[in-house]
Amino acid sequence: MEFSEWYTNILKEAGLVDIRYNVKGFLVVLPWAMKTIKLIYDVYENELEKDGHAPIKFPVVIPETNLRAEKEHIKGFEGEVFWVTRAGFNELEERLVLRPTSETAMYPLFALWIKGKKDLPLKVYQSGEVWRYETKATRPFIRVREILWIETHDAFATKEEMMEQVKKDIMIAERVIQEKCGIPFMVFQRPQWDKFAGADNTYAADTIMPDGKVLQIATTHELGQNFSRVFDIKYMDDDGKKEFVWQTCYGPGISRIYAALISLFGDEKGLVLSFHFAPFQVVLVPVYKTDNKKKIDEYAEKVLSHLEGFRVYYDRSEKTPGFKYNYWEMKGVPIRIEIGEREVDSEKVVIVRRDNREKKSVGLKDLKVEVERCAEQMFLDMKNKARKRFDSLIHEAEKMDEVEKKLGFGGFVKVPFCSIEMDGKGCYEKIKERMHAEVRGIKFPEEEKPKNKKCVVCGKTAKHFVYLARQY
Amino acid sequence: MEFSEWYTNILKEAGLVDIRYNVKGFLVVLPWAMKTIKLIYDVYENELEKDGHAPIKFPVVIPETNLRAEKEHIKGFEGEVFWVTRAGFNELEERLVLRPTSETAMYPLFALWIKGKKDLPLKVYQSGEVWRYETKATRPFIRVREILWIETHDAFATKEEMMEQVKKDIMIAERVIQEKCGIPFMVFQRPQWDKFAGADNTYAADTIMPDGKVLQIATTHELGQNFSRVFDIKYMDDDGKKEFVWQTCYGPGISRIYAALISLFGDEKGLVLSFHFAPFQVVLVPVYKTDNKKKIDEYAEKVLSHLEGFRVYYDRSEKTPGFKYNYWEMKGVPIRIEIGEREVDSEKVVIVRRDNREKKSVGLKDLKVEVERCAEQMFLDMKNKARKRFDSLIHEAEKMDEVEKKLGFGGFVKVPFCSIEMDGKGCYEKIKERMHAEVRGIKFPEEEKPKNKKCVVCGKTAKHFVYLARQY
Repeated sequence: MEFSEWYTNILKEAGLVDIRYNVKGFLVVLPWAMKTIKLIYDVYENELEKDGHAPIKFPVVIPETNLRAEKEHIKGFEGEVFWVTRAGFNELEERLVLRPTSETAMYPLFALWIKGKKDLPLKVYQSGEVWRYETKATRPFIRVREILWIETHDAFATKEEMMEQVKKDIMIAERVIQEKCGIPFMVFQRPQWDKFAGADNTYAADTIMPDGKVLQIATTHELGQNFSRVFDIKYMDDDGKKEFVWQTCYGPGISRIYAALISLFGDEKGLVLSFHFAPFQVVLVPVYKTDNKKKIDEYAEKVLSHLEGFRVYYDRSEKTPGFKYNYWEMKGVPIRIEIGEREVDSEKVVIVRRDNREKKSVGLKDLKVEVERCAEQMFLDMKNKARKRFDSLIHEAEKMDEVEKKLGFGGFVKVPFCSIEMDGKGCYEKIKERMHAEVRGIKFPEEEKPKNKKCVVCGKTAKHFVYLARQY
Repeated sequence: MEFSEWYTNILKEAGLVDIRYNVKGFLVVLPWAMKTIKLIYDVYENELEKDGHAPIKFPVVIPETNLRAEKEHIKGFEGEVFWVTRAGFNELEERLVLRPTSETAMYPLFALWIKGKKDLPLKVYQSGEVWRYETKATRPFIRVREILWIETHDAFATKEEMMEQVKKDIMIAERVIQEKCGIPFMVFQRPQWDKFAGADNTYAADTIMPDGKVLQIATTHELGQNFSRVFDIKYMDDDGKKEFVWQTCYGPGISRIYAALISLFGDEKGLVLSFHFAPFQVVLVPVYKTDNKKKIDEYAEKVLSHLEGFRVYYDRSEKTPGFKYNYWEMKGVPIRIEIGEREVDSEKVVIVRRDNREKKSVGLKDLKVEVERCAEQMFLDMKNKARKRFDSLIHEAEKMDEVEKKLGFGGFVKVPFCSIEMDGKGCYEKIKERMHAEVRGIKFPEEEKPKNKKCVVCGKTAKHFVYLARQY
């Protein structure tokens, strides 16, 4: 089955979203998805707090004046914001936007909070939604008008500290998205024509979806002093001189991380969820025969008592075991425990791994440890498999026809390229036009530079290797 | 100091909110508040999940058509919604409101989800914000235009189950707000003229703020079949007949619970936070003398190792111990640990309770247990004190002049009253006009009915005892 169809089906079958809400591009996120999404938020927030970020909550509405203050920023966002113009029966004196991102909400207050070096670094994060009036076709979790994300906003005394934070942001993405979620990605410094509106530079993590298209799942932005100059965010340095702060902001896309979780690990039977992020980690399925229902239910109680601390569901519904196996496999529950007559008599259970359907008979006293071991091994295998596939989709090319062919395999094509400054935009446009591909940027931190290579498009001396890909 | 002034001061001093955001009635919630608020959400969500509610996420925007579907509902909300009328450079085809509450967002989909009895009960909760264009004076956390809350929406096959849920909602409020937060309240069935727009009945929990005014902190609504008739939410009963479902919705106000936490427990030195909800549970303050800094810092490491699992802050800043004591008392940290030369030498520490500033010398190996014990006792004392005060503010009266006098003491005045149906509204209006007080309703579950008593206003036979109060 083609990925796009698979994705549409699983969203419906597994009860992840309802797309019938009557505002275009807005979704209802259903409990089975919401539970995993809450767990992703928890992990991400926890890592951000460890890195010294404090939770904060700014209003969802931003006055028009604020949004217009930074010239590049408004240019980037004006066409894609929702406008609040009335309240009750009155026209508002000043129009408000639903935040598309919170720089212009937060930074006027940063200017009030930051006075001296002791107020720096300032590091906050906000979990919640942002709204963007997408004109491209929407697709649940991948491209929506109501985006679930986290944004961090940091201010520093020096450029060096700002660049340090960019690296830390990437490390946090590695810890959460790669290590804990198992989603492989590559980080790029985006070309100048594809950076965040108002930033000096944008660094972004891209993963590769099953159809070979890449998906940006987190970005961190080197804002330099662009916003601090506009919003007058200054601190007094040791010599009593006022200096503008250096800023970063960072946006892991929680909707998109979830989209990648669904897509990279799912199979023909449905979702495959890792133990940490599964709403139910274990499903217990009784295999009743005539007259042994009570016996099995009693044994199940005993089994459940050995599984305390896990999120376990005991499926006592009227359906057949076969139906239940299929249903919970479709829902992606990582571990199934089967108990029938034989298990009761031998004081054992059968545990089954969702990803490879491997079965194992386990005694009750080892059950908890075995479930943990099995869950861990399953996640490692999922992660390794995803990483292997990802690595196999990084191609190289030096000629345009070769580029085109390799783009067809999906993933990235590494090519020598003239420049990711604005003077390279012409070459990018040719690639875009001929191959519908994007220049994702140079790998960050940058790998070796090309030696005596020619730009794959214009033939001039190549300054960088860049990665091309078709994107979501 | 008058409460209102104290409240305004503490919000600023303790770094709870910044009121300088440039949209009226919208706040910036700062980290010290946000951390506690996140903990309140966790506790509430956990209890809701135990009661079988699943997390869900509906869009924040609701199409105008939906909002207008239920006649009473739109009447109640039309004057207080924010309107989204434009997106990008275009006028929207249909205007949207920022949700003031989510009935009309959710119920059209409930109609699609509910087909048979097997789909019932349906119980979901949503955490997040709602927006109301308040025309009354706003006050942080108490009355704002952006409200942090949770809303649950449940559907049942029978009226009895619906009424059961109303009771469960109240029990959950008791567990979270009274038991875990320590905030005493009384539950009332609101009069017909003061119910939720679209409900048959509203039940609400009111606490009493330090100035004697009451604050509604949670409401649950018996929606009956009002919305299910409008949105056509039906299930097939056992006889194959289609029946409308019975619904409840429930809204604990997280902003207001937080307002009550601040207000009921704070004292002249600042906030007093209970152990469970304090961002830092323990602050460790070194008492340096010349030349013993290293010795004390080393000992502090050892002390910290005995406090693992708690949220502890070691304040090594340059300030004096006295300054730090005052600062952390103002911030409400429940337990302070002091370590000076004498403590190092005797392998002890001094622990100090925030509420009564009781001191105790404790050996290292008992430290963890002693902190837990101290935290627990402090919370019990806080809770009991608040309960005692609450109970002392429930007055009774049978004459209007007596009512007026007792309203002056703050809290509730229990009076015999003619009726909480619409025919009692005239009497309410007189109370409102003469005494600026509200009829909060009859105690729920209802206590004994008045025998041969006359309505305190009109002198007709009293059907109920109701409670009057001045409110926020």
